[in-house]
Amino acid sequence: MVFAPDPAFVNGSIAVTDWPLCHVRLQDDGRFPWLILIPRAEGAVELEDLSAEQRALLTEETVRGGRIVRRIGERLGRPVDKLNTAAIGNVTAQLHVHILGRRRDDPLWPDPVWGRGPALPYSSVAMVEAMDEIAAG
Amino acid sequence: MVFAPDPAFVNGSIAVTDWPLCHVRLQDDGRFPWLILIPRAEGAVELEDLSAEQRALLTEETVRGGRIVRRIGERLGRPVDKLNTAAIGNVTAQLHVHILGRRRDDPLWPDPVWGRGPALPYSSVAMVEAMDEIAAG
Repeated sequence: MVFAPDPAFVNGSIAVTDWPLCHVRLQDDGRFPWLILIPRAEGAVELEDLSAEQRALLTEETVRGGRIVRRIGERLGRPVDKLNTAAIGNVTAQLHVHILGRRRDDPLWPDPVWGRGPALPYSSVAMVEAMDEIAAG
Repeated sequence: MVFAPDPAFVNGSIAVTDWPLCHVRLQDDGRFPWLILIPRAEGAVELEDLSAEQRALLTEETVRGGRIVRRIGERLGRPVDKLNTAAIGNVTAQLHVHILGRRRDDPLWPDPVWGRGPALPYSSVAMVEAMDEIAAG
């Protein structure tokens, strides 16, 4: 299997780790605790491009990602009210799942966050805290 | 199990059928072939509120919904370029998954569609065609 994340992900997110199926990235936007999961399946664009076994694994890794997003929110002092999960891919087609945490008092609530910049890069301290939570999760 | 779709879904979408896990609705917006799947699990708000078995079933029903969305797009003469799939729930918290088809020449491409009205209700003929495709799928 030849897999590499689309270079478009390098701008705006940071490679953190690999789980059994997915390459895991942290979106560098301190407005929202936000992970991107990219299944390491060469050429996959839609859910239907994965096997049923891969899809089930993606779903479980999505739940795992949601738990971590909640923990990052708590660590940063902004507990999550609602998870938002999506596979869109209109801009970058490589199959990827966004998992992010929203608060009723966040600046975009209740609108979706995609395409709604500008991102607010993490401070170095907050980045270390977020990385800790991913490593623990 | 006591399940009823949130009344908010009645405005803007039409109940079509029930699959093994999900209540299936057609969004009444002819701009995009668009299904809403609502797991019939009382009180579920997040993916984590379902069992792993229910989540795997939701994922497979999501893929099934994507195939139908593609077929509705073809039937209406506007084949889908990209599926968009999301569980957001900021406005209506009851767990539900949007599955919709985008085209590179659609009026909102590449932005997400949520919160971007106004909807364009189906003609009666197009509605019957869309219902046919769901029944066949």
